[in-house]
Amino acid sequence: MEYVRNAWYVAGWSDDFNRTLKPLTILEQGVVCYRRESGEVVALEDRCPHRYLPLSKGRVLGDDVQCGYHGMTFGPDGRCVRVPGQDNLPSSAHVHRYPIQERHGIVWIWMGAPEKADPCEIFDMPEFDSNGWAVHFGDHLHIGSHYLNVAENLCDPAHVSFVHPTTLGNAASEDVPIRVVREGDVVVTSRWIRNAEPVGFFKAFGNFQGHVDRWHYYYLHPPCTSVIDFGSSSELGLDEEDRDQGMRIFALHFLTPVDATNTIDHWMHIRNAATNDDGAGDRMNELFRVAFAEDKEVLEAIQAEELKQPERRSVRIAIDRGPNMYRRIVSDMITAEKAILQTAVDEKPKA
Amino acid sequence: MEYVRNAWYVAGWSDDFNRTLKPLTILEQGVVCYRRESGEVVALEDRCPHRYLPLSKGRVLGDDVQCGYHGMTFGPDGRCVRVPGQDNLPSSAHVHRYPIQERHGIVWIWMGAPEKADPCEIFDMPEFDSNGWAVHFGDHLHIGSHYLNVAENLCDPAHVSFVHPTTLGNAASEDVPIRVVREGDVVVTSRWIRNAEPVGFFKAFGNFQGHVDRWHYYYLHPPCTSVIDFGSSSELGLDEEDRDQGMRIFALHFLTPVDATNTIDHWMHIRNAATNDDGAGDRMNELFRVAFAEDKEVLEAIQAEELKQPERRSVRIAIDRGPNMYRRIVSDMITAEKAILQTAVDEKPKA
Amino acid sequence: MEYVRNAWYVAGWSDDFNRTLKPLTILEQGVVCYRRESGEVVALEDRCPHRYLPLSKGRVLGDDVQCGYHGMTFGPDGRCVRVPGQDNLPSSAHVHRYPIQERHGIVWIWMGAPEKADPCEIFDMPEFDSNGWAVHFGDHLHIGSHYLNVAENLCDPAHVSFVHPTTLGNAASEDVPIRVVREGDVVVTSRWIRNAEPVGFFKAFGNFQGHVDRWHYYYLHPPCTSVIDFGSSSELGLDEEDRDQGMRIFALHFLTPVDATNTIDHWMHIRNAATNDDGAGDRMNELFRVAFAEDKEVLEAIQAEELKQPERRSVRIAIDRGPNMYRRIVSDMITAEKAILQTAVDEKPKA
Repeated sequence: MEYVRNAWYVAGWSDDFNRTLKPLTILEQGVVCYRRESGEVVALEDRCPHRYLPLSKGRVLGDDVQCGYHGMTFGPDGRCVRVPGQDNLPSSAHVHRYPIQERHGIVWIWMGAPEKADPCEIFDMPEFDSNGWAVHFGDHLHIGSHYLNVAENLCDPAHVSFVHPTTLGNAASEDVPIRVVREGDVVVTSRWIRNAEPVGFFKAFGNFQGHVDRWHYYYLHPPCTSVIDFGSSSELGLDEEDRDQGMRIFALHFLTPVDATNTIDHWMHIRNAATNDDGAGDRMNELFRVAFAEDKEVLEAIQAEELKQPERRSVRIAIDRGPNMYRRIVSDMITAEKAILQTAVDEKPKA
Repeated sequence: MEYVRNAWYVAGWSDDFNRTLKPLTILEQGVVCYRRESGEVVALEDRCPHRYLPLSKGRVLGDDVQCGYHGMTFGPDGRCVRVPGQDNLPSSAHVHRYPIQERHGIVWIWMGAPEKADPCEIFDMPEFDSNGWAVHFGDHLHIGSHYLNVAENLCDPAHVSFVHPTTLGNAASEDVPIRVVREGDVVVTSRWIRNAEPVGFFKAFGNFQGHVDRWHYYYLHPPCTSVIDFGSSSELGLDEEDRDQGMRIFALHFLTPVDATNTIDHWMHIRNAATNDDGAGDRMNELFRVAFAEDKEVLEAIQAEELKQPERRSVRIAIDRGPNMYRRIVSDMITAEKAILQTAVDEKPKA
Repeated sequence: MEYVRNAWYVAGWSDDFNRTLKPLTILEQGVVCYRRESGEVVALEDRCPHRYLPLSKGRVLGDDVQCGYHGMTFGPDGRCVRVPGQDNLPSSAHVHRYPIQERHGIVWIWMGAPEKADPCEIFDMPEFDSNGWAVHFGDHLHIGSHYLNVAENLCDPAHVSFVHPTTLGNAASEDVPIRVVREGDVVVTSRWIRNAEPVGFFKAFGNFQGHVDRWHYYYLHPPCTSVIDFGSSSELGLDEEDRDQGMRIFALHFLTPVDATNTIDHWMHIRNAATNDDGAGDRMNELFRVAFAEDKEVLEAIQAEELKQPERRSVRIAIDRGPNMYRRIVSDMITAEKAILQTAVDEKPKA
């Protein structure tokens, strides 16, 4: 499987990291994380270069990690600082260090060339810090399907009517056309369902009685961040720009590719309703949990079929414009990374 | 694994099918079955051509099946009848339809070219509908071994003495020679054990006190249907043609190849004793269940050994005449199917 | 995976064998063992040459084993003695017989050419039969790692400080250098820790109050037998030759390679303390059990990493001298066996 490497991926929520060693697999790489005494999160290659024991089987000593087999010890920069029984440290004894940034309760890891890691590129949105918005963390969901399958689902408003008929969609939207726009590298797919019955989610939380205008905007930031802006308004005829006047929710999904058939989805939401009611946020999460389990079942079944007949071509239909656009952008990003790598090789002075 | 495709296989008992979607795997193909409103069983390729979700994850709408991901809908002939969000239906949007026939409480599926599906070729025997015979359904048994291994066991009277010593065989038959005859494509292996102690099964059900004449006739209809005619008579010296005068049972096995290492065995029996006593039929089935579990253990152990050393040649002995004949017939059937396919390709006008 | 074949491996403890059929896998070979009526252990290839059913699925008849499928029967020398239903016995109908020796409560099997099996080469040590020594059997431990990984651990005193800090090692030994000597084909790695706190094991059993001199001598007999001589003495300054004056324990490990990723470790100990106290031996075994479970976790994690990146080169450090020497000896043994096989082929008269 190919991945975009020069990107910030979510390693976990801030709460997931402490002074113990936490093993992760991201882009098929074993990574071990822990907090330094200062609290800063460290991420290192999770394998001792001596006999390959994962460092996560060892222990944290101060700011360092000690291998659990023969005690080789590595600092937070990945360099070996001790080999028990000998004084000289072999020059090849080091492990890769992954750049880490922590922000808004989220720990981000950079899987590409460390010198390219620019914290300015980390996903952000003003509602994380704005009055009138509640930030509510969700959970992480393991999905046995590769990240392209999962991401496609996140630029695809059409599936909601069929996969989530009791929570996020209903029959009223089945045939409403989808608008697809590319804004920079972000794929935006959206639709409005006007003057229709509210879906289960807004019946449960919005106290909506009669018909509503409701919307779905899926902002998919390649490779792996998704913002789903959805809401309802009992005031019909709402202008596209006035969504804040309705009940508006941003469902965020941060996909972390594990390997060719597995993805972790860290999900959370930001909302402009019941902003002081943590219980409401928890109850919303329970509905999200139901809906995302429905996605998981579909995406894992698709993965299983792809493995059975990998070469087969699928029929493409109108609603695939968004997913097709997303796949093309990711493919271009991967191609561009390879070209840069090749240039670096070509320009390297001969030894 | 190679299979005979132009053949009727058992998809299940009639009771197994209703208005819900039932997924099956037959000859490595995913198949989804359901009953139309009229009651007729439909069998379609179990994969939406759009994003490969098995249709069995969707739902039945009237006579149609709707995909659970984006609502693409297919009629009982496999043609796409709806793509939500667009009016035109892509010409490539269809799934394979498998011919189905239902008879005597059994649902048969044709896995080959639909135009060759001839209901006259479905296995039948007069005792299904004759006075003096009770038809008693059994169960389906999953066996982790390929269909050739399972079928061999069903033209092999010799194994009964060793695998089923408490139910269907005993030591008296260990060295009795086996007669092997080919009748058309049917392999018939048989032996009589004259004037011997009855086996466990007939002790339990036949009220036999002293010695009996007993017989085994294995009729193996390639590729996958087996009729085992076995019985006992307390009147010694019974003529081969007069088996109906003894207690006579036909154990039927319908093998459905799943893939290269798995087979489903649908088994049932027809008997000329206790014909109005359903309880007796159930108790016989319990003995069959014991015996077939013994076969399953042997056949799965053999499969495991074959996987370990696939190239190794086995020693062949006298009792292998029936199995060898069966394997040759199946191999010839597969070769003939390939030749017909090749002729069709050769004769196809160039585009 | 390559193995030394001309060697005695431990098939099990004497108690493990009786008149029932016991299946084993050794050097990727299926082996079935049972005791003859005389008590002698027989080891045969565990597969009937007819249809590949493991003979261990059959039954013992006198000194013979009968296949559970069609009753083919093999004598303790592996030759077929009966084929039910026919008089002549096919010349190819035999299974391999493995030489077996039983000694000191241990059953040894020879996996190579039977004519080379020399009982004099079986591992022995005088303490099995000497006054003042207690022989105490342990258990067998399955380790999901290949035998070279497991054996390396048994010529590696350095890991004890880090893997077994509560039982067999402690921090005092972390930087004590290791002596490595080759005595014939035996790799001897050792170190003394002088005037230091006793480790958990000797605190528990030796009644040691203050500082001790303690030692580790790892005698690794390629391919697969290990003797770990370890002990403590409260009399400081003990001479290397006077270890019997301290509390001295020999931990024996007999490795049986199963396949490329699995090994069975039969372990036991011989001690010069509490020699009449079986309960003490059992309690020592409980500590060994804790320690060997720690090794198992490390060795299985290493195996998993090797499978992920089989081609990768590891960093080698000073403490690897013993393991490197061991690997070289095993590699030479395998090369020598192949050369002999090649010579045999070359010298074979042409047919």
